[in-house]
Amino acid sequence: MEHIDTLLSASWVIPVEPPGQLLAEHSVAVHQGRILAVLPSAEGRARYRADNDISLAGQVLIPGLVNAHTHAAMTLFRGMADDLPLEEWLADHIWPAEQRWVNDALVRDGTRLACAEMMRGGVTCFNDMYFYPDEVGKVASECGMRATIGLIVVDFPTVWARDADEYLAKGTEVHDRFRDDPLIRTAFTPHAPYTVSDRPFARVRTLADELDIPVHIHLHETDGELTDSLRDYRERPMARLDRLGLLSQRLIAVHMIHIEDAEIARFAQCGASVVHCPESNLKLANGFCPVHRLLQAGVNVALGTDGAASNNDLDLLGEMRTAALLAKAVAGDAAALPAAAALEMATLNGARALGLEDEIGSLVPGKSADVVAIDLGGIESQPVHDPLSLIVYATGRHQVTNVWIAGRPVVNDGTLLTLDAGALIANAEQWRQRISSDERN
Amino acid sequence: MEHIDTLLSASWVIPVEPPGQLLAEHSVAVHQGRILAVLPSAEGRARYRADNDISLAGQVLIPGLVNAHTHAAMTLFRGMADDLPLEEWLADHIWPAEQRWVNDALVRDGTRLACAEMMRGGVTCFNDMYFYPDEVGKVASECGMRATIGLIVVDFPTVWARDADEYLAKGTEVHDRFRDDPLIRTAFTPHAPYTVSDRPFARVRTLADELDIPVHIHLHETDGELTDSLRDYRERPMARLDRLGLLSQRLIAVHMIHIEDAEIARFAQCGASVVHCPESNLKLANGFCPVHRLLQAGVNVALGTDGAASNNDLDLLGEMRTAALLAKAVAGDAAALPAAAALEMATLNGARALGLEDEIGSLVPGKSADVVAIDLGGIESQPVHDPLSLIVYATGRHQVTNVWIAGRPVVNDGTLLTLDAGALIANAEQWRQRISSDERN
Repeated sequence: MEHIDTLLSASWVIPVEPPGQLLAEHSVAVHQGRILAVLPSAEGRARYRADNDISLAGQVLIPGLVNAHTHAAMTLFRGMADDLPLEEWLADHIWPAEQRWVNDALVRDGTRLACAEMMRGGVTCFNDMYFYPDEVGKVASECGMRATIGLIVVDFPTVWARDADEYLAKGTEVHDRFRDDPLIRTAFTPHAPYTVSDRPFARVRTLADELDIPVHIHLHETDGELTDSLRDYRERPMARLDRLGLLSQRLIAVHMIHIEDAEIARFAQCGASVVHCPESNLKLANGFCPVHRLLQAGVNVALGTDGAASNNDLDLLGEMRTAALLAKAVAGDAAALPAAAALEMATLNGARALGLEDEIGSLVPGKSADVVAIDLGGIESQPVHDPLSLIVYATGRHQVTNVWIAGRPVVNDGTLLTLDAGALIANAEQWRQRISSDERN
Repeated sequence: MEHIDTLLSASWVIPVEPPGQLLAEHSVAVHQGRILAVLPSAEGRARYRADNDISLAGQVLIPGLVNAHTHAAMTLFRGMADDLPLEEWLADHIWPAEQRWVNDALVRDGTRLACAEMMRGGVTCFNDMYFYPDEVGKVASECGMRATIGLIVVDFPTVWARDADEYLAKGTEVHDRFRDDPLIRTAFTPHAPYTVSDRPFARVRTLADELDIPVHIHLHETDGELTDSLRDYRERPMARLDRLGLLSQRLIAVHMIHIEDAEIARFAQCGASVVHCPESNLKLANGFCPVHRLLQAGVNVALGTDGAASNNDLDLLGEMRTAALLAKAVAGDAAALPAAAALEMATLNGARALGLEDEIGSLVPGKSADVVAIDLGGIESQPVHDPLSLIVYATGRHQVTNVWIAGRPVVNDGTLLTLDAGALIANAEQWRQRISSDERN
């Protein structure tokens, strides 16, 4: 018998590759953080002697969820300003709150709270865009969560840097700092076409090529963004990025609501990824991303929650359900975005967007053991006619019981192992008191 | 001191009347099933001596949720046929499954499972449409859940009756049987304009007036329904119901996706209610109900999950979030359907639709003590800047801890008190095995 560290045996395994496959009574064999095999449980028990032999009856194993667009630290602003349009929400509420409150401590505490919420809900990897990416990386690394941290770039001064040159210099520094961390990657995150001018975009393009990292940006989110771009640049934002050489496989374009057929074709041709954030798009009334048309054209579409200030949670299971339901109505076709495709968006497509498809996103031998166990044994999941359908259309994140990242358990039976939930809750309450006393003045 | 049976003291109370009100550190005083007072907890403790003095720190009390459109027994068909258009889904999957499997036992077991799922998720009242309404009523009454059971009418023979006359006769009989049950009401439920002809509609109208009960029907759900009605009756379904005298305060029209301005105005004028089922509408790709236009016109809009075969859960908290998010995008206005209005739809508007607004739907003295406690103490709810925002935009049904219906506890700390969850799960598995063995043959 082969000696391994972990054998996970569940009632069902959904490996995501190949799409739609459901394996009953299967096991995932894990050693030193990697998946060795996915095989029938009877065979697994005959072949392996595991230090941790874990039986998950009534549960289904899926790959860790990839939240492909977050502003993790903004979790501390959850619910502060709801039911407002994007421009007013940003200009009158979010930006002032950020100016007043964002510093390294808020980013550290907000990101820790976000990591806790995400890991408890089955998210094992997130793609972040915020200030103090060094703090984001430190927090994720400490709690054992996989992250791509965003090296932010905007034209104007913020708490993080004075001008584009300083953003780029600090970003490169942060990239170097995490070069050897197995869980942390970096991406350049020029905020949006309307906050970054041509010169910094050109520099981002050159540096991203040199460092071989993605470029993560908000793109075609609102009508106003398109109007302003036509006024200021006489071209649509996507055309502008194309002119600046940014349309490539490196590009992670978030939202992409307002797009024409030719733009979709160009996107597919250049191999860029789209991150769909349906709940944020709905809540801010920005519109409906034509996910089915993107997928039909062959574009890689991943899934993100956006920040908790506009969502208001970091629940990727819920986001997957919203995405699957909404795509059907937008397409006018109940067969658009079936359950298997929705789960693929929330896992493998996210990995592809981040350039991590050889490492995560599916349960196949050789990949990192980022695995999530979901309990289908409760009242809300009965009867279990179809586990995949249940996960997409009827499962709440509280049904996530166990989570492993690179083979390390981070959630066990619903309890966080690498973070102190009580301390996080007390800390969040302190921030709330500070922020609300200020709002009253 | 006044002696009462129950005093519920929570960190927050949201009474729904008046809309948007948030009461911090308040109590709900309950005696013999009714709300006596909603008052500051310090006053409550000074004024009342309660047999059950219950402290709910970190929790918020809201009125019981009203699920205004269900096919409860269909929970046993959850996830059997996903990602299909309505017509194909009905004709090739649901109707054959119903022909093969629906009997009194399935309705009893399916409804019991549905009641368990709903009560655990904070639903205290449901408005059902299905065969064997007598079984639905018995199950709800036994487990202490409030229900309006549907006296079904269609033109064709089913397991329940042979022809319209028999449906109406059996319906009247069922109505009489539950006349004295404090929790159970009845409504006529002609299935849809395309399954009921003029004569039975006229009879429904007369009998509903005589018995003083609502008329609950699927209306303007699909484009096909409108086309067929124009072909067969030379009028739209709503015009046809108007001609037949059915447009009144009694009418509970479910879906109402495809509607013109004049129809909205007529609806408002006659005082009928609409039940919005956003997740079912999305999943079956039927379209987008213009909720904001209905509300602006003064129409009472309630909220329903529809059956678990098309949703696929009976999670009204989740449905409320979907409704609030979707309405904004459909209206193109982030201020459309704010959090307070969404909660009102899920509670008081449901009560109004059922003619029960004097009995339930808000936490005000004199009404029945249908109360739900939601825990905002966990990681996922931090920080608590705004409890109402949290409930609508970031709360999962697993955060429901305690539920009372007419003052009687039915869920305590997440555990069902009036149903045996283990037995229900085993029973659902038996149905699954039976149904799936048949599907394979």
